Amino acid sequence: MLEAVIFKGDHLDLLDQRKLPNEVEYLSAIDAKSVAMMIKDMVVRGAPAIGITAAYGLVLELNHHHSLPLEKQILALEAGKEILAQSRPTAVNLFWALDRMSKIWQDFQGEDLYEVLKQEAILIHEEDRNACVRMGDFGASLIDQSIAVLTHCNAGALATGGYGTALGMIRSLFREQKLSMVYADETRPYLQGARLTAFELKQDQIPVTLICDNMAGHLMQRGLIQAVIVGADRIAKNGDTANKIGTYSLSVLAKAHGIPFYVVAPISTIDLKTEHGGQIHIEERSAMEVTHIAGKNLAPQGIAVRHPAFDVTPAQNITAIICEKGIAKPKMISTAELIDGIWLRESGFEDALVQFFSM
Amino acid sequence: MLEAVIFKGDHLDLLDQRKLPNEVEYLSAIDAKSVAMMIKDMVVRGAPAIGITAAYGLVLELNHHHSLPLEKQILALEAGKEILAQSRPTAVNLFWALDRMSKIWQDFQGEDLYEVLKQEAILIHEEDRNACVRMGDFGASLIDQSIAVLTHCNAGALATGGYGTALGMIRSLFREQKLSMVYADETRPYLQGARLTAFELKQDQIPVTLICDNMAGHLMQRGLIQAVIVGADRIAKNGDTANKIGTYSLSVLAKAHGIPFYVVAPISTIDLKTEHGGQIHIEERSAMEVTHIAGKNLAPQGIAVRHPAFDVTPAQNITAIICEKGIAKPKMISTAELIDGIWLRESGFEDALVQFFSM
Repeated sequence: MLEAVIFKGDHLDLLDQRKLPNEVEYLSAIDAKSVAMMIKDMVVRGAPAIGITAAYGLVLELNHHHSLPLEKQILALEAGKEILAQSRPTAVNLFWALDRMSKIWQDFQGEDLYEVLKQEAILIHEEDRNACVRMGDFGASLIDQSIAVLTHCNAGALATGGYGTALGMIRSLFREQKLSMVYADETRPYLQGARLTAFELKQDQIPVTLICDNMAGHLMQRGLIQAVIVGADRIAKNGDTANKIGTYSLSVLAKAHGIPFYVVAPISTIDLKTEHGGQIHIEERSAMEVTHIAGKNLAPQGIAVRHPAFDVTPAQNITAIICEKGIAKPKMISTAELIDGIWLRESGFEDALVQFFSM
Repeated sequence: MLEAVIFKGDHLDLLDQRKLPNEVEYLSAIDAKSVAMMIKDMVVRGAPAIGITAAYGLVLELNHHHSLPLEKQILALEAGKEILAQSRPTAVNLFWALDRMSKIWQDFQGEDLYEVLKQEAILIHEEDRNACVRMGDFGASLIDQSIAVLTHCNAGALATGGYGTALGMIRSLFREQKLSMVYADETRPYLQGARLTAFELKQDQIPVTLICDNMAGHLMQRGLIQAVIVGADRIAKNGDTANKIGTYSLSVLAKAHGIPFYVVAPISTIDLKTEHGGQIHIEERSAMEVTHIAGKNLAPQGIAVRHPAFDVTPAQNITAIICEKGIAKPKMISTAELIDGIWLRESGFEDALVQFFSM
């Protein structure tokens, strides 16, 4: 499996995802500044992968100030944190990782701050990878025969500490011989499906077929898809899920064809302060990302464009939400109950999602 | 309005649609061979426009043999017909137009075959344009307030003798001030929506906004679309409709949101020999049209691809089929009845579609 983020002690190797699938090239970062630049320039993408990268960025920064007195080390770390925080101001995981790291140096009493921070960054990375494997295995436990699935965008190893979320479930299905085909839709306008998901799965010799976004309904109509598996950018308390634009359309198509629709995402994606999807702001991105492909303008000059980057899939279109703590499923049981790692409730996901945070 | 096909007596000016929207350039054809080449090379596209172009191609061919004896003129025409028939062997309108023209010379008794054929070609062209205007006006009569609509692919003036089918209804809505916005989806993989529909509507100052195919559901969810209007490649006897890939997904989304779904197409599109959509063969096109955009490969080398060029929208997802003879609507009336130009029937479109052929 290709890894997006590789820590090498004195530097970090980051897979340049802008050049995929045509070139596989790693860029090296040696301090907070160079790490921040690579986050900003989209060398690395995906919320978990960005958080992990930022944590390593602090370790690399301290590496240059290792021999100084502790207070000077902390000054350097604070400056590094500031630089990294500005690299992608909308990425929740970025701040989560920086805060987790900074809690360590704020309370630090021991001898070797560098070693402790390094172990913490490695732990953040390992925890994320392990969480992905747990999600994947939980998800695969829902399936009892070989199926063909559809996925959207890239919720894969490239976006996480490894293994992936939606693609983690797909990897677990493949390992358990319950996967006949993955249909990867290309995911306009950024083509993460064509460039990243198709690439990542092909690398691992998982059977994958590329389609355009508008072909999904036709394949469902022909009975070629038995499940839709996607990641999530944010999950509201009631289970409404924000994800890459196009996810909502797939959920409607899946429902119309009686096909289960699974959301696979870490618990850090669940936002209990957001009651429902209507409260999620949908970012509108630039027209040029729609009108230009591979640097060439394919639409009339000055054409008006809508480019919502995300959409919201309502809870009632979702069969199950799978995270590293278990599976949330709305079901006809009077109170939320944990059965074989599956949270069941009469309607909605709320009790199960709230419960995850107390586990 | 830009015209795709302009007859200039001794030559034909064809708008080179491959270069749209970046360049507006006409190419001249002077005989059957050069016309056939331009049809083959996709300078001209759209079933009605291809039929019209082929008819003019015969006129241009005869122009070079005008002074010969009648039997030599007919030999030249037969040879020209053969060349034109091979230019796009799957285009139904191409053969329809060639056959209509050849019936004239087969029975010809008069003096000036060239003049008669020229008038027939001009008539084919005018009939098509007039049919489009009738379809458009019939369609607009279904709408009684200002609405925003979504269209797919290009069923416009560029694909017909002028005015368009789906875009004809949109033009009529605009003229009658019942149109607030047209959302044109880009229509992967060929991008006819981005390159042609957005261009054609913008030229005519009709309000148009470009979106990616996967954004349609989100806009419907937000209440931004009040009707979907599309063309058709073939309509089966029961109303099942084959159209550009992606149309079926839109019909499911429209139904889920309670949005009417209109098919606008000439009666020549209705194929009474096809009982239902299951009998329509779906052409699979090349993988490269999916993996390459603007000449650049955006997917992994050797990736498997599905590329169905069309899909089938079942009759039950269609609110009305609008052609130049009237409007077919499935409705709760015991037998098919023509009321105000609208054919009504309890369920299905069959009676109405069959009736159109006897009108």
